Order: sequence, then structure tokens, then C-alpha cells
Amino acid sequence: MTRLRLAMVGGGEGAFIGAVHRMAAALDGDWDLVAGAFSTDTGRNTRTGTQLGLAPARVYASFEAMIAGERALPADIRAQAVAVVTPNHLHAPMAIAALDAGFDVLCEKPMAMSVAESEAIAAAAKASGRHFALAFTYSGYPMIDEARARVARGDLGAIRLVQVEYLQGWLSLPIDGDGNRQAEWRTDPARAGLGGCLGDIGTHAFHLAEHVCALRVEAVSADLTTHVPGRRLDDDVSAMLRFEGGARGMLKASQVAAGEENALTLRIYGERGGLEWAQMEPNTLVMRWLDRPAEIVRTGGPALQPGVAALTRTPSGHPEGYIEAFANLYRAFAATVRGEGGRWFPGVVDGLRTMRFIEAVIANAASDRKWSPLYPGETE
Amino acid sequence: MTRLRLAMVGGGEGAFIGAVHRMAAALDGDWDLVAGAFSTDTGRNTRTGTQLGLAPARVYASFEAMIAGERALPADIRAQAVAVVTPNHLHAPMAIAALDAGFDVLCEKPMAMSVAESEAIAAAAKASGRHFALAFTYSGYPMIDEARARVARGDLGAIRLVQVEYLQGWLSLPIDGDGNRQAEWRTDPARAGLGGCLGDIGTHAFHLAEHVCALRVEAVSADLTTHVPGRRLDDDVSAMLRFEGGARGMLKASQVAAGEENALTLRIYGERGGLEWAQMEPNTLVMRWLDRPAEIVRTGGPALQPGVAALTRTPSGHPEGYIEAFANLYRAFAATVRGEGGRWFPGVVDGLRTMRFIEAVIANAASDRKWSPLYPGETE
Amino acid sequence: MTRLRLAMVGGGEGAFIGAVHRMAAALDGDWDLVAGAFSTDTGRNTRTGTQLGLAPARVYASFEAMIAGERALPADIRAQAVAVVTPNHLHAPMAIAALDAGFDVLCEKPMAMSVAESEAIAAAAKASGRHFALAFTYSGYPMIDEARARVARGDLGAIRLVQVEYLQGWLSLPIDGDGNRQAEWRTDPARAGLGGCLGDIGTHAFHLAEHVCALRVEAVSADLTTHVPGRRLDDDVSAMLRFEGGARGMLKASQVAAGEENALTLRIYGERGGLEWAQMEPNTLVMRWLDRPAEIVRTGGPALQPGVAALTRTPSGHPEGYIEAFANLYRAFAATVRGEGGRWFPGVVDGLRTMRFIEAVIANAASDRKWSPLYPGETE
Amino acid sequence: MTRLRLAMVGGGEGAFIGAVHRMAAALDGDWDLVAGAFSTDTGRNTRTGTQLGLAPARVYASFEAMIAGERALPADIRAQAVAVVTPNHLHAPMAIAALDAGFDVLCEKPMAMSVAESEAIAAAAKASGRHFALAFTYSGYPMIDEARARVARGDLGAIRLVQVEYLQGWLSLPIDGDGNRQAEWRTDPARAGLGGCLGDIGTHAFHLAEHVCALRVEAVSADLTTHVPGRRLDDDVSAMLRFEGGARGMLKASQVAAGEENALTLRIYGERGGLEWAQMEPNTLVMRWLDRPAEIVRTGGPALQPGVAALTRTPSGHPEGYIEAFANLYRAFAATVRGEGGRWFPGVVDGLRTMRFIEAVIANAASDRKWSPLYPGETE
Repeated sequence: MTRLRLAMVGGGEGAFIGAVHRMAAALDGDWDLVAGAFSTDTGRNTRTGTQLGLAPARVYASFEAMIAGERALPADIRAQAVAVVTPNHLHAPMAIAALDAGFDVLCEKPMAMSVAESEAIAAAAKASGRHFALAFTYSGYPMIDEARARVARGDLGAIRLVQVEYLQGWLSLPIDGDGNRQAEWRTDPARAGLGGCLGDIGTHAFHLAEHVCALRVEAVSADLTTHVPGRRLDDDVSAMLRFEGGARGMLKASQVAAGEENALTLRIYGERGGLEWAQMEPNTLVMRWLDRPAEIVRTGGPALQPGVAALTRTPSGHPEGYIEAFANLYRAFAATVRGEGGRWFPGVVDGLRTMRFIEAVIANAASDRKWSPLYPGETE
Repeated sequence: MTRLRLAMVGGGEGAFIGAVHRMAAALDGDWDLVAGAFSTDTGRNTRTGTQLGLAPARVYASFEAMIAGERALPADIRAQAVAVVTPNHLHAPMAIAALDAGFDVLCEKPMAMSVAESEAIAAAAKASGRHFALAFTYSGYPMIDEARARVARGDLGAIRLVQVEYLQGWLSLPIDGDGNRQAEWRTDPARAGLGGCLGDIGTHAFHLAEHVCALRVEAVSADLTTHVPGRRLDDDVSAMLRFEGGARGMLKASQVAAGEENALTLRIYGERGGLEWAQMEPNTLVMRWLDRPAEIVRTGGPALQPGVAALTRTPSGHPEGYIEAFANLYRAFAATVRGEGGRWFPGVVDGLRTMRFIEAVIANAASDRKWSPLYPGETE
Repeated sequence: MTRLRLAMVGGGEGAFIGAVHRMAAALDGDWDLVAGAFSTDTGRNTRTGTQLGLAPARVYASFEAMIAGERALPADIRAQAVAVVTPNHLHAPMAIAALDAGFDVLCEKPMAMSVAESEAIAAAAKASGRHFALAFTYSGYPMIDEARARVARGDLGAIRLVQVEYLQGWLSLPIDGDGNRQAEWRTDPARAGLGGCLGDIGTHAFHLAEHVCALRVEAVSADLTTHVPGRRLDDDVSAMLRFEGGARGMLKASQVAAGEENALTLRIYGERGGLEWAQMEPNTLVMRWLDRPAEIVRTGGPALQPGVAALTRTPSGHPEGYIEAFANLYRAFAATVRGEGGRWFPGVVDGLRTMRFIEAVIANAASDRKWSPLYPGETE
Repeated sequence: MTRLRLAMVGGGEGAFIGAVHRMAAALDGDWDLVAGAFSTDTGRNTRTGTQLGLAPARVYASFEAMIAGERALPADIRAQAVAVVTPNHLHAPMAIAALDAGFDVLCEKPMAMSVAESEAIAAAAKASGRHFALAFTYSGYPMIDEARARVARGDLGAIRLVQVEYLQGWLSLPIDGDGNRQAEWRTDPARAGLGGCLGDIGTHAFHLAEHVCALRVEAVSADLTTHVPGRRLDDDVSAMLRFEGGARGMLKASQVAAGEENALTLRIYGERGGLEWAQMEPNTLVMRWLDRPAEIVRTGGPALQPGVAALTRTPSGHPEGYIEAFANLYRAFAATVRGEGGRWFPGVVDGLRTMRFIEAVIANAASDRKWSPLYPGETE
């Protein structure tokens, strides 16, 4: 198995998500990080490259230099894919430039600053014939695959209710201006986009709900709030959802749920039963039934749907977590980059849906209308 | 301690809630059931009275006969209070008649069929000088008292988020017409009122949220659904709430959450922390904090607020449940009936708020407006 | 349904278990408390009788006076059964005297101070033809019945492992001499007997294990410890068990497990699966399997064994607890006292087994031998 | 940061633990796998090397060839450390040979086949001046470090009780002879050693207990059982433990606890409180107290002991699991190999204690004596 070569833009020392990408890429031995433009701060950029053991020539001063530099290398040496782990406003220009230059791209979420930008990425991917993956990490958990397969098989019957929540508490205090790098850009409209909490974690919740149900939200009614004085973007999202086929949903995302860590949970109920999954205990999927005891389905356990066991690296009871879920995305992406096809990973379609969700919520929250549509018919 | 004498209307054999009232009244030895009009079916009425060991003369053929018969008895023999455990449409006429006749009343929820009826009960209570209690049972749990006291003391800081849910699955199938007595009247507008799930359990959720926060909802936006074909009332409620002071809430109540039993949960987040309580494990209250580990506060455990320990009958770790919570209402009501004053129990104010909630949700759900007001200023 | 008449010895104000007996007896309307000798302290005795609303003539100054006084009453007025809720050293003399006088007896555990005393009770019950029940309360939980029925049906296959624990922390500090009434007599050999923690809660653990497995322990190896300086009886028990048929067990009971409340747990594993039950969340029984997902069996839920649902008073999800479990014993005892027969309750056989366990553990703990026998063949 | 170079013996395709070692070594970028002798089956060995992307010249036909081959390479190319991931009987000869040849060694547990062999490894490490790490993986979890630090600080007061369990169910059926590679060698005395379940997982339980308490077991009383007919080694261990200072412990390890996955749990109680940790939910440490509510200490959460946060890679609520715990051992080992010193990892002392435990249990289980000593005074 040949290792693939990865370049990264963003993710300098002190950043959170860049380091996670590197661990996820390394875990299964599919990827070698070979190049990077980690920071516009020269010292920080160089230090990061050194710490990572990169050849100095491939630690680039800018994204543009990296694209140019890598293109100039022989095909069997240059990076094959670019991981874009910058603040949101850079996703679209960088992803498009990388695709246009012939690189496959794995980009952080949200996809871009607007639906329009997302469509431009979609167009660039199509035109270039290159692959585009989006880091909706939570869809990489085995029990999410299991849940999706069971819903698809009809275990629950027709879906009636969807309850999805993503609760964090880390923005409860006004740390935006206190030099907290993570908080700073996420609450800055120029870098984060129209949504604060909405774009950062509301999109994860929305994506997970549509992904597992395989149903599209047709209309949304939303209440968008900024609880912390002085904050420039929302830190709290409430939304009611109407799905195609008649299912009703509620979505809650908040970054001021004081004391909560990273509480993404999904519950789905159909005619015959319901399921429940919680990201903080991700190896368990509870299935409840009208007519028999609830079941605890487990990562690596008995009676999993086809393909799910392959997402696990250890016997049941040896917990796998967030990095492993992330690695499942890198592994699926690697298979596609290698041309082996295979397993699904989130990409253009997922990105467009979530950007439409952001725009619909923002429009609805600013209006007196109860419902705003979400164009459920599209099939990009 | 003299025992108080209770009469009951409704609650014939096979009914659920009447039997619970009787156990709750018996548990602490405060009440003796002395009279009843349990059913309009003569045989059922008589059998119930016999099973309960009542004197045959005090098993009445009708509510009216019971009121007349008990009034005719000497003061030290006749019932002092009447428990109204009939379908909803009978609450107001019976409560008013009992109050007018000089009895204290403990009534099942929802209070009545409309705000107007509820106001009539309120007026009757005021005019008669009699006490009126409403069976918002869940407010009888010790950990609900603890939560309320901690919020009041400011442990969480100003409240920002309120998430309340009440999920059941027992109406997932169309059992309404299958002779299930519980399902039948609860889905019949003539007996249940305007709300189905909304009135039956949505009111519990709403009451618990306002009760623990001590904040009133100012506006509601709702989506009311009937998932089961042929059902005549809603079986599913989604609502967004805006509280006085700026807190945001979400309320979900459903009787088609297949596989759920009686999952009433409440989470409240303030500036500095959050709390979580779940009715199905009612002796635990989780307190989460921004700056220190979460705490597991326990019924009967250390560091409870004043008065809370008195709501418990056994040492910590000997679980108390639903019947004990219910008994706490009967105990508090007994203290008031005896003129000892003392502990709070839900009554007229709680009933009016929940009826206003029902009407606001129904109005909002039928309209295109996003928000409907809930008259937060009233202080009956 | 005629109510039965109960007399009580012990259980004056401030005592824990007497009050629980009274609530358990009252809950289902089977019993009226009609007489008592609650305390040898006259004031305390009188106050307790008054609080309970007893006729003053039936609040007796002593146990002997109560037995004599009640026997002198007409048959349709005098107490039918006596609840013995005194410290352990009084169980045998009082139970025997009550049986000999023609009363049925419901006695607290442990049965007596020795196997010899227990055998004398057994003989008195046999000679008098009266019924003897023993308050092994935890066997009154519906999920314990469910577990026993499933083991009996062979769901788990042949039993291999039994892990039973009973952990409390309330004796972690030397409160024995601090005027804590509960602690005082439980740590006094003259009143508690040979075992401290062993007799108080170790017997519950042992009983539950044998009861659910329907297997007898053949041999025990034990380590008995007194952790708190100055304490006169053990406060901590470790034991290894060998069951008939080859199953292996471990039993842990401690009253110095600081921070634990009342953590009685039972796990049983057989060839094909295992089960787990925890008293502090008593409405759940987890069944684990080799070849399929674990199941969460619930009080009041679907697929229960015959007879188990009858032990529950409310729909699933309305938690029932310790008092309800206790009430199930009083209800089963009532059925037998009425001559309706029916449901099992713990009695002479259970008491003798647990007394033999106490004596075997004490003998073994004092010796260098690894194993001491427990006479598994007996079938009293 | 220069990457270190690792060679591996054992861990050919299909093996479980070798792959885990490789992921753990890769996760943080500290190690590059550069050489291996993965299997004595030539095809399997070659395929494994190819899949891992090794240079063919460094995929060796035997351990001896690997040691010789690597020694012959220049110092800046040859492997610096050897991971020994073979069945148990090869640990000692290979570890000793590797140490003698100047390599640092990270070895799977149990350390060897006997105390004598372990002492030989200890002597070889001392003589060579090379480092020896032992894969007691569970001590790599952050919450284990937290627990150990809190016990050391005296939060619980003097320790009284230690309850440790390791329950698996995967050997419930007689799969030993069915071609299950994992089961086969683990139940073969010639390859696994004197203990079956005892050596495989009992050692983990014992190590964790002594490690977190920082107390040594002085004496053990044990019951060793083989439940599955035809199995050649124990599949079930019960033991009572006496610790220095008077603490009492119970240890249960079983591989026939049908339905259990990998349920390693540790509870420790002292004078003032207790702690509980469960490997299957490893990011939570519950602290219980006599006088205040229990606390939920969390990986990455507030109020951790110094150094513990550094063992975590993601913000709290992004679960880390078994591979991350394993990577913590590789990271600590790397720091020592680089001469940076620093963090503790399990090694010779841990190995010797666990081997003494194995021998003491086997001796005790075969005798009628209740207690066998464990030489608590040694301080290798």
C-alpha cells in the first residue's frame, strides 16, 4: 500500500483542528504529511514545520507558494491532496485554487462563507475532476454508519421525529477579545461568516440529522441569539425543522450551554422504534422498540450492518473516539484518491446543504415568517 | 396527627391515575379515602368502592350525589377535600361545584378545557376561600425543589437556555379506537380539550420549566402535528420559547416517540453553569460548571438546600419514585388543609399559566406568525 | 377486599425501618396498623402512637403487653400479624412469642442472632401453623423477579459467575458512639449479633445471589475487617463463593465505602449471556448476550415474564423504588395471611440460609483454611 | 523533533496487538516503523511488510536476522527500539537479546513466563543500560494519572478498599481449538505461561490497582477456575487481596463473563471518599465524598492535576480512547529514549510485581492455605 502525500494550509502550532487532521491522517498509515503553509507568521510557520519533521523546502511562506512549489515537483514527490484547515473565509479561495491546480482537497467545515461560494467550489471540483472532501467528522463514527444503515433498512418504519443537539459551553464568557485564538476568529463575521455558533457547530448537527435520516429538511423556523454582550455573531441557535415526508425535527446548537463539553446528540423516532446516539459516548447506539426491550448496539459488537465493522480498529470494549472517527474520513478519502472508490465521505453535496441551512436560518431568524424553505428537491 | 378525609370523583377500576392518587394519599398516613363516585357505570363504581373498603353508603352514584351526601354528614365525618381525577372536560364543573360546596379540591391536570374555564375555577376558589391544588406531580420530586432553590440562589447566574422535553411512545400506533380507555378519551376533543399531547404532557413540561426557572415565557412559536392517521388531536408538539429576561427555550412533547416510556427531562443553563434532571432517574440532579467538575446532587445526599431533605422518606440510595413525588403534593396539600400552612404546592396560578400556554400554542401553530405572546406580566 | 390488621413492635419515632414498614403496609391498602409497642421509652412510644393515629388503648408499653392485649380482643378486631422491627437480638424471642400466640409474623433481617435461634423460629412457625416472612426487601423488586425467572428458564445457560456487592459509606467515620441510634446498635455485638456489616447488609447480598440464581453456595472463603478503630464488629466483608454446580462467586459488602449510598448490585453470567441489576436504578435489568446486542429490560416494559408486571403500580417510566419493593413483600404476605396463597415471599428457608452464611463467614475468617462449607443439601 | 526508529517482532497481518502498537506509535509522530520480523510464515511476513510500506531489505525472516541486520546498519539509520509483540513465551528471550544488542525495548505483557525470566530481563536491562517498557496500556489513560495523583495527594485519606475487575466474555465458547489465533495461543501453557486469563488480563487488573493506589499487595487468596471443558488454562480468576497498610481488595478477572466486552473497572475507597473509573468510558473519573456531592472529573476538563492535561490531544468532550492511551505510553517511552526523561511509563518494576502476582495466585489456588504472600517490601 503506497502512502499518499498530503499538504496542509493552516494548522500552525497552537491551532486545534490542524493537529487533529495530522493525527487522523497518520493513524492508519495512509498519508504522509509532506508540505505545509501553516501560518502567515513566519516564525510560527517554520517552527511548526520543524516540529513536524518536514523538509524545510516544503514549509512554504504562503498558500500560493505552496501550490506553486508543489506543482513544480515531480509527480511522484509532490503532494497529492491539500488539507485546508484555515478560518472559514479562506476555504473557498484556497479550495478552488487547489482544485484548479490539480490537487484533491479535504476542507474544514463550514464549506465556505455563502451558498454562492460553495457553488463555486462545486463547480471547480466538477471542472477539475478532482475530489473534494469536507470534514463533517462526526459522520465518521461507526455507530453513525450503523444508524444510517438501520434507518435505510426500515427498522424504525417511516421517520416521524428528529431531535438533534450540539451543546458546548466554552463561549459562555466573553473570551472573544481575550486573545483566545479559537474564539477570536469564530466570532468575527469577516472570518467566520454569517453564522457564529450556527456555522461552527449548527452545521454539524444539521448535517448529521439529514445524513442519518437520508431525508431533507424542507423548511426551517429559527431563533438566533447572541447571549454574551459584545459578541458579534450568534452563540445560540434554536430551530424547528420540517422534513420531506412529514417528519418533524428540532435542532439546538449552543456555545453558551455552560458546563457542556461537546454534547452532540441525535435521536430519531419512527413508527416502530427510535434510536439514540451521543458523540461523547460514541461507541453505543441505543435502539428502542415499541414491542420489545431496547437494545445497546456497540462498536465492534455483534449484529452490525455490513461494512460497519471495517470502521473499527480494536475489539469491542476498547473505546475508539474522535480521532478515529476523523481517521475514517481520511481513510475513505484516501481510497477515493487512490482510485479504489469505495466508502462514502462527506463532500460537495453535504457542504451545499449545510450552507443553504445557514442562509435559511439567518433569513428566517430575521423575519416574522414562521417557516423558510430549504429547497429539498435539489440533487447536486 | 389527625388524618384528613378525602373523597374522589373518577378513578374507577382500570383507570390509571385514580389509583395513583389513592396510593399517594395513603403513603404518609395523612389522608383516609372515605367517599367516592368512581364511575358512572354502576357495577364498576360499586366494585371499586368495595375493593377500597369504603362504607357502601359513601360510594355515590354520581358526583352530584357525593357532594350532596357528604355535605349532609356531620363536620367531623364528612370528606374535607375532593380529588377530581376525571377526563379533562369535567375538571371545571366539578372543581367549581366542590369549591362552592365548601370542599378543598385537588384536581388532575390540565386544569380545564380553556383559559376561561380556568379563570372560573380561580374565581370559585377565591370566592369560597377553599384551597385548590393541581396535580403537576413532577414538581413534587425532591430534586426539582433542589433545582429550583439553586436557580433562585443564583448558582447558575442569569438563565440563558432552557431545554425541556417530555417523550412518550405509547400512542405510536392508532390505539385510540381499539378500546384503550386511556388513549380513547385523551384523543377525543370533547373530553380532552383543544390539545392532545399538548394538554396531556406538554403542560407538564411547560410547568416544570417555568417552575424551576421562576421565569415566565413571554412568547411561543410552535409546530403541532398529528402523526397517526385518523387521530383527532395532536400527538406531537415542538415549540421555541422566549422567557422574560432573554432566556431562550425549546420544548418538545410527543406521544409518538416510539420506544420512549416517560422521558421528561429538564436542562437549564445560566452564565456560570447548567443543571440536568431526568424524571426516569429522579433522584439525581447533575450540576455542571464552567470552572470545576460537574456534581451529582442526590436525593437524601449531602449539601441539599433547606427543606429538601424533608421531602424524602428513606436514606440516600433507597430510590423513591413517582408515587413518592405525588405523595409530596398530597402532604403539602394536607398541611394547608390543616391550616399549618407551609410547603408550596401547584395550584391556580400554575393552572392558568399552563392553560394560557395551550391556547397560545394552538393559536400560533395555526398561523404564519412566528411568535405568539403569553402575557408574562400576570400575577394571579 | 378486607384490610388486614397489623401490630408493630419497634419503630418508634426516629427509627428508620419501622416507618418504611408502615409506608409499605399502607401503600396498597392491604393493611391497617392497629396496634404497636414502638419503644420502651414511654414518651417516645406514646408520641409515636399518637402521630400514627392509633387508639391509645392499643399503644402498648411493652411487646408482652401488646401480645396479651391483642389476644384479649375479639377476633375481628385484634391484630392478625405482628411486624418485628427491633434490633436483631429481639427478633427470635419476639417472633417465637408472636407465633406461639397465634399471630403471623413479618420480621426484619437478619433472622436472628444465630442458626440455633433461627431454627427455633422455624420450629415455632411449624408448630403454630402461622406464617413467617422475613424482610429481604430487595427480593421484592420486579426486576429481581424478572431476573430469577429468566435464569430459571435457562436464558443464560448454566451459571458460571456471580458477582454481588453491597456498598455503603455511612459508617466511614466512628459515629458508633456519637449518639447515632442506627449506628449504635448495629455495631454492638449484644444487639446486632456476630456480624456487623456482615449481618446488616452482607446477608442481603447473599440472599439476593442465591435467590436469583436458585443455586446454593457450597463453600465460602472470607476476609472480615474492622476498618474504623474502636468499632466492635466488622464493617467490611470480602468473600469468595463456590456454588453447587461449579459456579464461582464473589461477594463484597462494606459500610466504609466512603461516598457510596446503598449500592447493592448483582451480576450473573452463564454460558450464553449475563445479567446486571443495580438497586439504585432498580427498574432496569440489563441482559447481555454472546451473539447479539445487550437488552435493557424495564419495569412495566414489554416482554416481561409472567407475573412480573403485577408487581408494578404505574406505567413504565414512572419510577417505582424501595418502598414499592417493600410493599410487594407486604402484598404477598397479605395474600398468604388471607389464605389466597399465591406469590412467594422470603421466609424461614431464606432466613436459615443467611444465618448459616453468617456463621460460616465468621468461622472461616477466623481460620487459616481457605474454604468453609455451607451445607448446600438442606431443604428446610 | 526527530522521529525515532522502531523495529517490531510479531504483529503479522491478522494479529490484533501488533497493529495497535503501530497506530499508537504513529499517532503523535514520534516513531517511524522502519523494520520488522512480523511472522515466521514467510508469505505473511512479506505481505505485512509490504502493506506497511517498509523497505523489503528491512523485513526480516526472523527476529535474530532483524537484530543482526539492524545492528549492521549505520547508527542514524538503524532502529533504536524494538517492540516485542509476540506470544508470551518469546518475551524474555527476545527482550534480553534486543537489550543485549543495544536496543531499547517495548514489550507486551505479561513480562515473561515466570518471575525468574522477568528477573533475567531486569538484569539484562540493568547491564545494558537500555530502557525497557511494558505495555500496561491502561495506565496510559489520563484519568488513571488523575486518579493516581489524587490518591497520592491524600484526597481520599488512607485507603481502605480496592475493587478491581476485568471482565471479558470472548472465551465463553470453546473457540480455543477452532482456529481462532488469539484464543489458541492464549490458552496454550507452552506459549501463554502458567496463567490463562490470569496472565492475559488478571495482570492488567493487578497492575492498575497497585499503580493507582501506590500500595503493594502483601497477600493474596485466590480461586482459579477453568469453566470451559477441555481448556488447558484458567479462564476465570477470583482473588482477595491484602494491601500494605491494611487496605482490603478484591480482584476479579474472567474471560467467560458472557456478553462483557472489555470491562476493566477500578474503585478505591479511603477514609473520606472514593473513586471509580471504567475503561469502557475512560474519560470520566467519578469522585465520591462523605460530605459533599460526587464529582465527575473529565479528560480535558477543569481542575486536573498537573501534567494530566498534557496526556490529551483534543478539547474535552472529543472522546479519546484505547489507542490514545497506548500512544501515551509510546510518547513517554520516546521521551526517555531521546534522553529527555520526563513522564513515567510501566517497566521492569511493574513487570516483576505482576509476575510475582501470577505465581502467588497459582500457588495459592492449588493449596488449602488462605493466604499466600507477595513480598511487598521489594523495591527493584
